[in-house]
Parts: sequence; C-alpha cells; structure tokens
Amino acid sequence: MEQHVREEWEKFSELLSKISGYGEAIGLLHWDLRTGAPRKGAEVRSGTIGMLSGELFRLETSSEMGAFTEYFSRPDVGSQLSEVQNKIVKDCRKEYERSKSIPSKRYEEYAVLAAHSETMWEEAKEKSDFASFEPFLSKIVAFKQEFIDYWGVKGTRYDTLLDMYEPDLTVEKVDEVFSRLRSRLVPLVEAIAASPNKPDTGFLNQIFEKEQQEKFGLFILEQMGYDFEAGRLDESVHPFATGLNPGDVRITTNYLLDNVTSSVFSSLHEGGHALYEQNIDKKLVGTPLAQGASMGIHESQSRLWENMIGRSRAFWERYYGDLQQHFPVQLADVQVEDFYRAINSVANSFIRIEADELTYNLHIIVRYEIEKLIFNEGLTVKELPQVWNAKYQEYLGITPPSDGLGVLQDVHWSGGDFGYFASYSLGNMYAAQILNTLRKELPELENLIAAGNLLPIKEWLTDKIYRHGQSLTPSQIIEQVTGEPLNPDYLADYLEAKYTELYKL
Amino acid sequence: MEQHVREEWEKFSELLSKISGYGEAIGLLHWDLRTGAPRKGAEVRSGTIGMLSGELFRLETSSEMGAFTEYFSRPDVGSQLSEVQNKIVKDCRKEYERSKSIPSKRYEEYAVLAAHSETMWEEAKEKSDFASFEPFLSKIVAFKQEFIDYWGVKGTRYDTLLDMYEPDLTVEKVDEVFSRLRSRLVPLVEAIAASPNKPDTGFLNQIFEKEQQEKFGLFILEQMGYDFEAGRLDESVHPFATGLNPGDVRITTNYLLDNVTSSVFSSLHEGGHALYEQNIDKKLVGTPLAQGASMGIHESQSRLWENMIGRSRAFWERYYGDLQQHFPVQLADVQVEDFYRAINSVANSFIRIEADELTYNLHIIVRYEIEKLIFNEGLTVKELPQVWNAKYQEYLGITPPSDGLGVLQDVHWSGGDFGYFASYSLGNMYAAQILNTLRKELPELENLIAAGNLLPIKEWLTDKIYRHGQSLTPSQIIEQVTGEPLNPDYLADYLEAKYTELYKL
Repeated sequence: MEQHVREEWEKFSELLSKISGYGEAIGLLHWDLRTGAPRKGAEVRSGTIGMLSGELFRLETSSEMGAFTEYFSRPDVGSQLSEVQNKIVKDCRKEYERSKSIPSKRYEEYAVLAAHSETMWEEAKEKSDFASFEPFLSKIVAFKQEFIDYWGVKGTRYDTLLDMYEPDLTVEKVDEVFSRLRSRLVPLVEAIAASPNKPDTGFLNQIFEKEQQEKFGLFILEQMGYDFEAGRLDESVHPFATGLNPGDVRITTNYLLDNVTSSVFSSLHEGGHALYEQNIDKKLVGTPLAQGASMGIHESQSRLWENMIGRSRAFWERYYGDLQQHFPVQLADVQVEDFYRAINSVANSFIRIEADELTYNLHIIVRYEIEKLIFNEGLTVKELPQVWNAKYQEYLGITPPSDGLGVLQDVHWSGGDFGYFASYSLGNMYAAQILNTLRKELPELENLIAAGNLLPIKEWLTDKIYRHGQSLTPSQIIEQVTGEPLNPDYLADYLEAKYTELYKL
Repeated sequence: MEQHVREEWEKFSELLSKISGYGEAIGLLHWDLRTGAPRKGAEVRSGTIGMLSGELFRLETSSEMGAFTEYFSRPDVGSQLSEVQNKIVKDCRKEYERSKSIPSKRYEEYAVLAAHSETMWEEAKEKSDFASFEPFLSKIVAFKQEFIDYWGVKGTRYDTLLDMYEPDLTVEKVDEVFSRLRSRLVPLVEAIAASPNKPDTGFLNQIFEKEQQEKFGLFILEQMGYDFEAGRLDESVHPFATGLNPGDVRITTNYLLDNVTSSVFSSLHEGGHALYEQNIDKKLVGTPLAQGASMGIHESQSRLWENMIGRSRAFWERYYGDLQQHFPVQLADVQVEDFYRAINSVANSFIRIEADELTYNLHIIVRYEIEKLIFNEGLTVKELPQVWNAKYQEYLGITPPSDGLGVLQDVHWSGGDFGYFASYSLGNMYAAQILNTLRKELPELENLIAAGNLLPIKEWLTDKIYRHGQSLTPSQIIEQVTGEPLNPDYLADYLEAKYTELYKL
C-alpha cells in the first residue's frame, strides 16, 4: 500500500470510529429509554436522541465521507485495499449516497418524531387506544413516503424500503418465496387443524413466578454461550437485543406470569441475536462491518436458537429436568414428551411474538401485505385496524378483540421500521437452510443438544457466520455456508417433518 | 426585542440545546459504566466518552460560540435580553474565554497527563508510596500554574482556581470565614475529646441485610419528596447523583453489610443533590443554567438533608420506628436516643469521607490551606506529606501513620481539581445559614420533621433555591434567601448547640 493511501486510510478510520461512537451512544440512550429511564425525562431524551442522530447523519453525509469514499473507490486505490476494506468503502458509499439525498433538517425532525412516537406507542398499546397513536404513525408514514422519493424508487416504492434491510431483495422475489412457502404450509396447517392428536397445553396456564423465570432464562443463556461479561439481561415491554459494541451486547425479555414459555423462548431468541454480535471479529470494531450481515441473517440466528434448537425434542430431553426444578409444583405431573408437544402446539393466535413457528409466517405475511398496501397502494393509517383485522380473519380465521392485541402489538412501525417484517420469515428460511448444512457437518448434532453440549454449535456458527459480521453479504454467506442460494423448501421440509411426526399426520 | 436579536437568539438556543444534549449523553454513558455496563465493553466505552467529550469541548469553544457571545454581550443587544438570557451569555462567554485561552496542544498534553496521573495515584495510594506519585503531581501543578497565567490572575493566583468552582468567592473571603470557623471548632472538638459522655456505637457493628437497607432507603427518598418518575436509585461503588435532565435525575448508593448508616446517609446526601436538580424550572432546560448555582450551593443541599435534617433528633423520632421494623433483630434493644447519639459520634479520624459533620470541616481547612500554599507561596509537591501531617496534628491532634491514610487519600489533585475542596465546607456553611432562615419562616420545622411532614421543606427550598438553577449566583442566592452574605457563625452556632447538648459539655 502506498504511503499516501495508508495515511488517508488512517484518517478515514478515525472518521469511522467516531461514527461508531455516536452509534454506541444512541444505542445506549435507546436501551435506557426502553429498560428503565424515568418517564418524566423521556421528552428531553427524545430530543437528545434526535440531535445525536442528526450529528451521526451529518458525519455519514459529510464532505469528508464523500471525498474518502470517492477516493477509495478509485480502481488504482481500491486495488491496494483488502477485501474487508473494500467492503467498508462500498457500504459507506451506499449509505452516503442514500443519506445525502435527504435534507439533514428533515432527517433530524424525523428522528425526534420517531423517538417520541415510540413512547406514545407504548402508552397507546397499554390502553389499546389506536386513535391516540394514529397521528404519530401517520406522520411517520408521511416521512417515509418523502424519503422514498429522495432515495429513488427501485421497482415499486416498497422495494426501496425492503432493500434497506435485505440488500438486493425485491418485492418480486419475496412474493415468489412467500407464495412457495405458503403453498406448502397452508395444507400442513389445515391437516394439523383436522388432526385429532392435539397436545394438551392446559398445564401451561398456571402462575410461574417471575423470579424463577428469570433464573431459568439466565441459566439457558449461559448454556448457549452468551457471555455475561459482554452483556446483560433486562426487562422491557418488547424484548430486544442491542449490540453497543462486541463487548457490550444487551438483551431484554418480558416476563408474563401466566406464560412461562414466553420469557424462555424470547431469551433464546434474543440470545441468538446476541451470540452473533458478541462473536464478531474484534478486528471489525470501530468499522461499519461490526454488525450482522443483514436483518434476515440476523433473524436466522435468533430463529435457529429459539425454534430449531430451543423447540427441539433433544433440547428438552436435556433441559426439562432443570425447568421442573424451577417450577416443581407446576410441572410435577408433566412428562417431557407432553411438554415438548405443548410448546410446539400449533394455534391460530393474535400475537406474533407468541405465535408458534409454523403460523408465525402467516403473521408476517399479513404485515408484509399491509406494508405493501401502504406504500404501493396508498392505504391510510386510519384504515389500518380494519385492514389488519380483516387479514387476520382471512389468514388465521380470527379477529383481534382489541387493537392492543392487533395492530398496536408491534413496536416496529412506531419507530419507522417499514420493510423489516419480511426479514423474520427470510430468517426462518435461512435458518432451516443453515441447519441442513449444520446437520451434515456435525452429524452428532441431536446428541450434542441432548447432552447440553451447545458450545460446538456456537463455535461452528461463529466460524461460518458470526465472526464475519457484515464483511460478507447475505447471499455470500448463505452460498458459502450451504452451497446454494436461498431456497424456501428447506423450511417447508423441516416444518413438514417436524409437525407430521408431532401431530401424527 | 428586535427581530434580528430574536432570530440570533433562536440560533444560539439551538447551539445551547445541542451542548445540553451532549452533556446528557455523556452523563448517561458515565452512569451506565458505573452502575452495570459489562466489563468487556468498558474499553470501547471509554473511547466513546472521550470522543463525545472532545466534540462537546469543540462546540463550547467554536467560532459560533465566540461570535454569539460577543454579539449578545454588546450593551445595545444585552439591554434587549432578559436577566436569565444575560446570565446565559455571561456564563457561556466566561467558559469560552477560559477554554480558548489555553493553546489546544497544551490542553491535550495536560489531559493525557491527568488521565495517566489518576492511574499513578491509584497505585501510589494503594502502596502508600508518595514518592512514585510526586513527579506526576508536580507536573499537574506546573500545568495548573501555566493555565493560571493563561486564564489571568484575579487577586492571588489561587483565586483563579477557586473562582472555577465558586464564582465571586475570593481567597480573602474564604480565609476570613475558614479562620473564624476554625477558631470556634477546634476548642469544640477538644472539649468533645475530653468529655466522658461518649455515645455507644457498638450496635452499629452488626450485619444489616442489603434488601432491607434498600427498602428503607427507597422509603426515606420517597419521604423527602424525591420523584421516582423523574429518577431512579441504583448501586455503584461510590455513591453519586447525576442530573441528565430535570426529568431524569438519578442517584446511586452503596450497601455495606456491616454499616447500615452508610447507605442511609448516602441516600439522604445524594437525594439532597437530586431534589435540587429535579426541581429546577423547566424553562431552563436546554440551557447551561439547568444545573446547580455552584459546587458550594449544590453541596449545601446534600448536607442540609444528610446532616441537618437526617442527623437530627426530630428526624429519628419519626423514622427510627421504621428503621427498627426493617431490622427488628439488630435494633431490638436500641433506644432512639442511643441511636441518635451513635450516628452523631465525633471522632478525630484520618479519612475525610468517613469523618463526622463536625471534624469534616477541619479536613477541608487542611486541604484549602495546603492548596493556597502551593499556588500562592510556592510550596513544592515534595513538601506536601510533611505539611499535611503537621496540619492534621495541629487541627485534629492526630498524625496519619502513612501517606495512604494521609496526603494520598483523595482523587481530586491527581486529576487537577485544585480549588474544589473548599466547596464542601462552604456547603456546610451555606446549609446552616439557610437552615437558620428556614427555621424562622417555618417555625414549626422540628414538629414537621418529627411528624414526617418533609414536603413543606422541599417546597420552601424549591421556591428559594432549586427552581432558579444557575440563573442566580451563589452570593445572590445566599443574600436573597437569608438577607446577608455568607456568615460562618451559623454553622459554628449550629454545631456548638448540637454537640454541647449531645456530649453534655
């Protein structure tokens, strides 16, 4: 590398490190707001988050950033850089160009609104009062529509949003994989509904003490290999994971007294996200590559741990005894097989995050279609509760009794995250495809799980996926790990095999 | 106000609000690091705090700040501003000029040295090895001497340092009040030492369960009027209060199993700081006036609540029964009067932060006199241990057996905080003087306290002090509230009356 290139790269690294620092501060301000910040400070706090997001935005769109990314994009300069360095330049340039197109004042106003809107959503959800939230959500949607124009429409307007979470993915492709998936899942769901072999889930409807739930959750996280010296577990309304830096990756959960499985599986889920971020190569710290490859790949890891490992028979052969010890009264007369069948019970329900792994995809399809309607067909926010309820009736055969159990249930839209939901089902598909390879390369997988020996799984995933962070694209990862592009049949195969056996179809 | 002035003020307000936001973010990053951030993230976190502190400094010394404060300082412009606005301009200008006067290269060298020096101090304190720390402290002092020249000498050289923490206070004035105070306290301390009526403190040396300590602390904070919707209580090694904004003022405490009084009085102390910041007028949010008037006035509020209310007989007449209920075994045979006498036991000890409210002032006077000798009389750092020990012998009748228990005990000097110590005793004096007025204006004060009716006290303090934030100077506050300037006799009177009765002198 020529001396001038090296010197420029050092200066560029300082800028990247500053950008990372702003990201960490904003991440903590958000985390704090959701986990325990006092109510009366929330308004000023929202302003602070907005201001710092504006500063971060300013750095990402600075003339410095423009000049650096232009310089390092030159073929004679880029050829002197490593692959990782070229990926950094490429991602920064993409972000620069996308952001440059939005006037910074508009972006800052949006950020203030989004932070405030989240607080309003929390209250509205609690009171099941969509009307109080509607003006905020309408403004968020209006901002997104405005931003789509700034960013430029690729394919349809909604494609522009999809691309932010899953690069190179289109409405056309998602429509295709979702319809293939649906065509195999719908008959499966129908067969299950018709099966006389329903699991007994009655024993789940007991009071499970919060303290014991917390203890068991901490134990399971430790078993997965979650590093508590590089993270912590807290409570929030909506569980989430946030990587402030690879040495500080926090997760939250929500304890429902009458539902022990909710906190257990949300800990496994967020724990999967967190394992990913804790195990990113330290060399990537301070660069934009110190994060997951995409939302879909990130979600594949939470789903793999929550469902494919955490809802497997082998897992509970090992850990059910521990759960019984935490709840000796509640689970005294419940056999492990009955527990396994109960936690895999398929039911058409209202709440996405409590849905089983099979119907979950229908919850996603509802949201995906509604988002498409908003951005491609002009559906108004006011109409959302009605459309939401109609689609739930159509796909799941149920109508939410309140907006708190319906359109208000998710945090995503309140923060402007449209285009995100599809990632969840993409994650399921990636996860099943990765699991298929994992089984080939660790043929003893079921035995390892049944022995509580989960660390080899974490190590395999670290080697194949986690350590790379965002230095590979989602399609590079899925092809390098599994040898083929995204293929929804692995998920359908996995679900068919599991549920055919479980429901004796 | 002319339109141009109004428009400029709006732009200036945006800059001020941005500065406030950086302060809030840095405050939260610090709070988090001290209360529960995972260990492995600490190094990256420190870098993030350093980066944001640099950004904040850049804003405070920006050409924008220079131009705004110069413009608003013009008589024809200033005359159109409110009193509060003029105070904002004055404070910002002072900070700007002070920071600007130091060549940035020298300041950076100093910052590196100060950080290193703190680490060296920690090691030296642990080994009680002053010689290893001396070269670093000498360099810190040399830098401070250089900075005094940059800042400009007002009165004596040490005046320049004092002014940073307690505006308008001079060496002449502090000399006068400290020597008056000392002349009354030294004989009092001697008389107590000679008194046969020593309280029994043996029962304090028991195990007090942490959970119960926490419950009692939360109860007392609630009684004081601390607003838990605008704050929270956490644990940290060293207790502190931090006002992120007036709607988010957090406090921490530290539970010592073998010392229940430590957490109780640190909660009252930090609670006093927090009441101040929670009750600052919301109109001042986003300006540099949304903080305490000075270190001394801030300290007066922690001391008033901790000592003058919290260590009063009336307070424990009301709350001792509650404390007993929290520790029924430990305090079963201890009468309230014995408890009151034990928590007010006076002892000549080596460590400032463990000192009682009476001898505490002598610890401060030692430090004040030594700082003055350094900056006004050329006392060398090498001579410090000898001078320190001689002064402890003279005022407290004891000679530290090691420098770890003597000159090395405090962190302040290692980080360059010369001029700060005086604030602690100024706080005691302000508190006693304010208490004297409070007693006149709420003649039923003792009865209110004994009835657990503390809110009228909080309301009175809010009206007289808290709501003003930094919009008044310390001397304006003390004169407006009490009708006269700082007068050390109120503290001496208070201490003489209390301890003469307590020790039957």
